[in-house]
Amino acid sequence: MADDHEITPWEVSNTFQEAQYEKIAKEFGAKIIDEGLREEIKYLAGEVHRFIQYDIFFAHRDLDQLLDGYKKGRKFYLYTGRGPSGKMHLGHLIPFMFTKWLQDRFDVDLIIQITDDEKYIFRDTSEADLKKYTQNNILDILSLGFKPEKTHVMIDSDNSNLLYNYGIRVAKHITASTVKSVFGLKDSDNIGKFFFTSIQSVPAFIVSAITGHNVPCLIPYAIDQDPHFKISRDILPKLGYEKPASIISKFIPSLKGSGKMSSSDETSGIYLDDDNKTIKRKLMKYAFSGGRDTMEEQRRLGANPDIDFAFNTYRMLEPDMTKVSKIYEEYRSGHILSGEMKMLAYEKITEFLETLNSRRDAVLKNMDDYRFNPERFL
Amino acid sequence: MADDHEITPWEVSNTFQEAQYEKIAKEFGAKIIDEGLREEIKYLAGEVHRFIQYDIFFAHRDLDQLLDGYKKGRKFYLYTGRGPSGKMHLGHLIPFMFTKWLQDRFDVDLIIQITDDEKYIFRDTSEADLKKYTQNNILDILSLGFKPEKTHVMIDSDNSNLLYNYGIRVAKHITASTVKSVFGLKDSDNIGKFFFTSIQSVPAFIVSAITGHNVPCLIPYAIDQDPHFKISRDILPKLGYEKPASIISKFIPSLKGSGKMSSSDETSGIYLDDDNKTIKRKLMKYAFSGGRDTMEEQRRLGANPDIDFAFNTYRMLEPDMTKVSKIYEEYRSGHILSGEMKMLAYEKITEFLETLNSRRDAVLKNMDDYRFNPERFL
Repeated sequence: MADDHEITPWEVSNTFQEAQYEKIAKEFGAKIIDEGLREEIKYLAGEVHRFIQYDIFFAHRDLDQLLDGYKKGRKFYLYTGRGPSGKMHLGHLIPFMFTKWLQDRFDVDLIIQITDDEKYIFRDTSEADLKKYTQNNILDILSLGFKPEKTHVMIDSDNSNLLYNYGIRVAKHITASTVKSVFGLKDSDNIGKFFFTSIQSVPAFIVSAITGHNVPCLIPYAIDQDPHFKISRDILPKLGYEKPASIISKFIPSLKGSGKMSSSDETSGIYLDDDNKTIKRKLMKYAFSGGRDTMEEQRRLGANPDIDFAFNTYRMLEPDMTKVSKIYEEYRSGHILSGEMKMLAYEKITEFLETLNSRRDAVLKNMDDYRFNPERFL
Repeated sequence: MADDHEITPWEVSNTFQEAQYEKIAKEFGAKIIDEGLREEIKYLAGEVHRFIQYDIFFAHRDLDQLLDGYKKGRKFYLYTGRGPSGKMHLGHLIPFMFTKWLQDRFDVDLIIQITDDEKYIFRDTSEADLKKYTQNNILDILSLGFKPEKTHVMIDSDNSNLLYNYGIRVAKHITASTVKSVFGLKDSDNIGKFFFTSIQSVPAFIVSAITGHNVPCLIPYAIDQDPHFKISRDILPKLGYEKPASIISKFIPSLKGSGKMSSSDETSGIYLDDDNKTIKRKLMKYAFSGGRDTMEEQRRLGANPDIDFAFNTYRMLEPDMTKVSKIYEEYRSGHILSGEMKMLAYEKITEFLETLNSRRDAVLKNMDDYRFNPERFL
């Protein structure tokens, strides 16, 4: 990674700090979600999802225009994705939880792209592992409860015919200079890396390509994916398609407190298949705490919940915002100790994972219903 | 094209001369076909095709090893291709005529890759034209009389699933530096160009990939395609496949005398769909002649048949080498005049094209029989 690329889809600098998000978003040319847009979302969706209220989804491109169109009867579709690089952490589900909310509230189709080709090109995962991750990750994601009739899981290797045939149309408009400057690629990188962004652009216009008329696309993603979609927005109008709109999230802090959760570091997060004992141990032993060093200090000075992994995880999983406010206040003021905060998170997490697990068998049985198929859009 | 790249698959320098072939072949690391190898071919094929005797197919890589294996019972398959960039010239058929001979004499399968994706990426052809060229070019090639049961036409856009899924395995081992130095690509070139060579490598191992055991591959091609297969030979062993062998031809001189025939210059060659009047006019008006300026000089000094378009075309299309030798001598010694040589070529060409045309309807009707389908190899 070049020194001047603090965020690329494949690496995030260790020095990356919370305070940089707005700066980065602005440098990338995205807009911060403001009060007016929140009002609009509330009007159309009936509520503003807590992830927006908590500033986790904090920026956007043309979301206002997309919602204007929606008000006038123009349905959009959602596109998000995952590179199947290993077992999933809780944090990996955040964008999908939010996407599910969008799907439910706006009653729209959703394409979930699984970029197994990307992982093959960028990592040294064996093909057998890649297959396993792909299946498990899809199962994890779908266990959130996506509607089969409006959800389209597009595994890249199963759909490379469409992806390559449309991908070269995108590729024709992207120079090597561009991917070097946008992603920090070098001449020593393989040509699969140079080409890949073309493939990730395709789902942003595939419904328009299939149906033969422009269908607006909204892409929820974490900010590290922004370079891809910045390129999509440049190229798609040249192919006769609309620029996709986007809604952009921050990274979910890792268990240890900063940066992006990694799939390869055992202690960087809580895996969806961790058992209760492991979850408790990880929370107690590794979870970055905003609390004080001693119980006495904590009682007297209170914690900083904003940087506390346990509190943040609790907040993510608890839909009742009044309850969350109360916990925030009690923790901040020293009424709740670090250990107690961790136990609250522990209960929330295990309850959440139980719900997920209870759905897995049914999803597994109906996996084919979610498969991407162009004919489902006709 | 960089100044130091006299031959790439997409451009050939105007200053390129016949005398440079051996030098280029050696620089590319290919071997000249020697007497020993000709003997071997004669032993196995029953004859040495005139294109080898005429030094049109003049170089190779590992053809000796491939034939050794064949003697021991290891069947190989053939792979060649065409970028559908326009109407086909006579010269474009030369490698296919030779490939058909190989197929017949060794009784082997043949994959003909039609790189419509390449033409899309490298040229500004409209998609409608590209479709038309693809269909017409395939029809032209198949009219040479390939056996449907052993011939597999692989249109890239119809097979991009396989091509991309296997192509990324190749791409992972090729750096941007390599394609820059081998093809003269620059940072200002599009990323489709950077990636493309991966796609052209795939047919060189696809039969091994499909069947699960190594099947040797022999690729007949014109020397401008060598950079692609030099790369294939570097990468395939890293993927567990054998290096493909190759047999390499010179360019067929254009009507006007030098360089590579172009599909875009009306007068650079004789189109397969030129009518007899056009063919006669092109030969008389544009064909580069090795004859003298006046009839008197020609009678006295004789012609240089080696650089004469009419003679070379006649030679290419006349299987009777004794007859060709006789004409060569008569033309060289001044017994035949330029105009007479052109008429001899004219008769040969029109007769050849009539045979081709008489087969087109039957081929068109059975087009599907030739379609590439992995299951045909199982």
